[in-house]
Amino acid sequence: MAKEIDNKEVVNREEDYSRWYNNLVVKADLAEQSAVRGCMVIKPYGYAIWEKMQKELDRMFKETGHVNAYFPLFIPKSFLSREAEHVEGFAKECAVVTHHRLKVSPDGKGVVVDPDAKLEEELIVRPTSETIIWNTYKNWIKSWRDLPLLCNQWANVVRWEMRTRLFLRTAEFLWQEGHTAHATSEEAVAEARKMVGVYAKFAREFMAMPVIVGHKSENERFAGALDTYTIEAMMQDGKALQAGTSHFLGQNFAKAFDVQFSNKEGKLEYVWATSWGVSTRLMGALIMTHSDNNGLVLPPTLAPIQVVMVPIFKTDEERARILAEMDVLKEQMQAKGLSVKIDDRDNLRPGFKFAEWELKGVPVRVVIGPRDLENGVVELARRDTMEKVSFPQAGLADEACRLMGEIQKNLYAKADAYRMANIRKVDTWEEFKVEIEKGGFLLCHWDGTTETEEKIKDETKATIRCIPMDTCICEEEGKCVYSGRPSSRRVVFARAY
Amino acid sequence: MAKEIDNKEVVNREEDYSRWYNNLVVKADLAEQSAVRGCMVIKPYGYAIWEKMQKELDRMFKETGHVNAYFPLFIPKSFLSREAEHVEGFAKECAVVTHHRLKVSPDGKGVVVDPDAKLEEELIVRPTSETIIWNTYKNWIKSWRDLPLLCNQWANVVRWEMRTRLFLRTAEFLWQEGHTAHATSEEAVAEARKMVGVYAKFAREFMAMPVIVGHKSENERFAGALDTYTIEAMMQDGKALQAGTSHFLGQNFAKAFDVQFSNKEGKLEYVWATSWGVSTRLMGALIMTHSDNNGLVLPPTLAPIQVVMVPIFKTDEERARILAEMDVLKEQMQAKGLSVKIDDRDNLRPGFKFAEWELKGVPVRVVIGPRDLENGVVELARRDTMEKVSFPQAGLADEACRLMGEIQKNLYAKADAYRMANIRKVDTWEEFKVEIEKGGFLLCHWDGTTETEEKIKDETKATIRCIPMDTCICEEEGKCVYSGRPSSRRVVFARAY
Repeated sequence: MAKEIDNKEVVNREEDYSRWYNNLVVKADLAEQSAVRGCMVIKPYGYAIWEKMQKELDRMFKETGHVNAYFPLFIPKSFLSREAEHVEGFAKECAVVTHHRLKVSPDGKGVVVDPDAKLEEELIVRPTSETIIWNTYKNWIKSWRDLPLLCNQWANVVRWEMRTRLFLRTAEFLWQEGHTAHATSEEAVAEARKMVGVYAKFAREFMAMPVIVGHKSENERFAGALDTYTIEAMMQDGKALQAGTSHFLGQNFAKAFDVQFSNKEGKLEYVWATSWGVSTRLMGALIMTHSDNNGLVLPPTLAPIQVVMVPIFKTDEERARILAEMDVLKEQMQAKGLSVKIDDRDNLRPGFKFAEWELKGVPVRVVIGPRDLENGVVELARRDTMEKVSFPQAGLADEACRLMGEIQKNLYAKADAYRMANIRKVDTWEEFKVEIEKGGFLLCHWDGTTETEEKIKDETKATIRCIPMDTCICEEEGKCVYSGRPSSRRVVFARAY
Repeated sequence: MAKEIDNKEVVNREEDYSRWYNNLVVKADLAEQSAVRGCMVIKPYGYAIWEKMQKELDRMFKETGHVNAYFPLFIPKSFLSREAEHVEGFAKECAVVTHHRLKVSPDGKGVVVDPDAKLEEELIVRPTSETIIWNTYKNWIKSWRDLPLLCNQWANVVRWEMRTRLFLRTAEFLWQEGHTAHATSEEAVAEARKMVGVYAKFAREFMAMPVIVGHKSENERFAGALDTYTIEAMMQDGKALQAGTSHFLGQNFAKAFDVQFSNKEGKLEYVWATSWGVSTRLMGALIMTHSDNNGLVLPPTLAPIQVVMVPIFKTDEERARILAEMDVLKEQMQAKGLSVKIDDRDNLRPGFKFAEWELKGVPVRVVIGPRDLENGVVELARRDTMEKVSFPQAGLADEACRLMGEIQKNLYAKADAYRMANIRKVDTWEEFKVEIEKGGFLLCHWDGTTETEEKIKDETKATIRCIPMDTCICEEEGKCVYSGRPSSRRVVFARAY
């Protein structure tokens, strides 16, 4: 898949952020549009990053007591109507299966839908699985001893989005959805909070992406939830991206699907529920948190290739000696758990290779030329700072490990500095209208009404991203930035992806 | 999910193999029917086994140079018609998406399909992905330098089966599908053979399941393939189960989707293809290879729990002391890489627990009662032989590891002995009709015609499972068991799942 790469085809961030993002996703071989409207192909390099995300998240879910299972792709249409708010939120733009057979076209060319194979009840390709899962849980839960039930599923889901963007909003996307059942409201709330905490930890430690954890306003809640917790990240253009949500569903789905358990006293009670999910959208968040005009910048913990080695040589003999030395160094680095690639392609110039691996965001590049070989050194380049230093071959493996930690920290610090520089308190409506145009998060007082929230959205396209749980940054008396009515805490307003 | 388990609800194998299988899948918490016709729910315990299979297969694919990617769930209807044989094989019973929106029903109750949201071209939920993938490869492959392209995808697929059985034949199932592109026919053939070899190795080493590797007859080939390689296993009722296939697709899909590459001489050539897959069907094969009337028997390499520990006690004080000792032993076994569970549920009798873990196929059970504790021993029971011995606590971790290896070997040996006892050469049609009723594999001469193959199938329901690649077991001159015409090799006939 090696092609001529022209980094100039990746437009500058400052010029057109949206085009920069799309260019990058395609040029770095992460994903591309498919022949099916709104559905993407996740290319091997992009999928390798997603696999790393999956692996860490899956480990974190299991460490917190969850097990994986798999539920059907299809949901009977009637299931969606069972929970009143849920159907409102999800039974709109979706993929509807109406027939189960094709037959040869009467004209003999191609195939047509067989009208005799109409389904009695249409099936919906799952936009989310609460309904089919709670219909299943009905048979799994009888007694308090069956609780808590802590399941997760890795799956594809489909929401027929009208305007799609690679990773950020696609008709089909990959995700995980946790669905848990509990004996008490308190336990379910604790679970929903625990899982948004897992997401925040994953975002910070693995994606090197700072996030604000908070509640969604009633208006922005998941359809069918009593409370939605969210992690909100700030992209490099100052817009917000909702990176993961965790919902306290109360007894809504238990009631809709009649899931009761007998408690310790032998009395029947409805079960309490949560659900929580992150998706391939995280790929978009990752890209828009760290990357630059040279391409992708990956945190070492999620980089499929952590160190790339590029030989520089004139003669075959030089090439052989340098590659032999690289093999030794590669083994040393692999022994320390690093993933290393030697780029020994013989049809490309070093400069081309440098640009390609920069575009692909490999954290560290090691170059060896004939003179380096003689001097027992390598040229060591960091992708995050683009710094280059000469370093002894002897200590390379240790230094590469150290660099991974340092790059990971630096990426977080850089993203956090940007974010902190773009969060500001705003107290008047005039100021709000000016500031929102500059991007970033505005910490404002809000009167708590959906009416005000919607007026602000209509006038400025800004939404309440969350009501932060970290009370010290927002709990103070004040007046609603729009209505002037009293407010006891600030919330985060921003324009969002 | 603890329920009263009555093993008598699992009918004996000898009595009704098919019911025994279904009972087992449900009672051992592997899978169950869902509310959607033909679609199963894979329960956590079943999914944990599937995850172990995935992990090993994925490792083997990566070790042989493959990378994962993800392609769309939907296939435009017209794509299916591009490859003539493929459409014949797959564009029949499938899930057809015709609309992309629901709306509130005119009577206000529930939702109905919005007739205004009809798709211009219907989408098919992928029954297999050759068409959408080769349509994508068209843009990925330009030069011989882009080859070979070695991708795999883990995905769900849908084939609208009329008669379904848990794991063995379901409308939706989980699988992996490898799709590779090569510069030459020889390379593609070598790849298809290599991957059927990977499947055979996985079946033998991880599933402890002997298989015969062979070619499918033309009639049984994958729709669009020039050659299909298969691994065929023998279930305990003597029926065959096709456990994995690998296809040499020639240039059929490259021509259908116009995928050409410029070779080293700069000339355009069509690309050569393979595809290969295994699915959750392997779960059915695993169950029907080893399990018995007490329930599931799992090979240690795929068992989610390898050692279960059950305490026996009368007093709280005994319970505490035994559990403390178990914690120590558990840690010792975990340190050696074993997965261990202590069943400390206080509402169930030991006998009930024994039956439950036998039903779930846990390879080794460790029981400690007060007297064992005093004597520094445990009771050690093997699931495969149901043997029990007293063993010193001091050496338990090492012994448990040793047992894992021994059980794994024993399961393979047992399955292989059964298989060898049920493979027989048959040379006359009279004999064939008698022998096929007894089950097992019949090694017979066949004249190589589809006509004969179909007559045999019509009369006996037996099909050609494969033309073995291991020539020494089948290459000999003879006469077709049905037509009497000359034949140069025996093939495997059997009734199959």
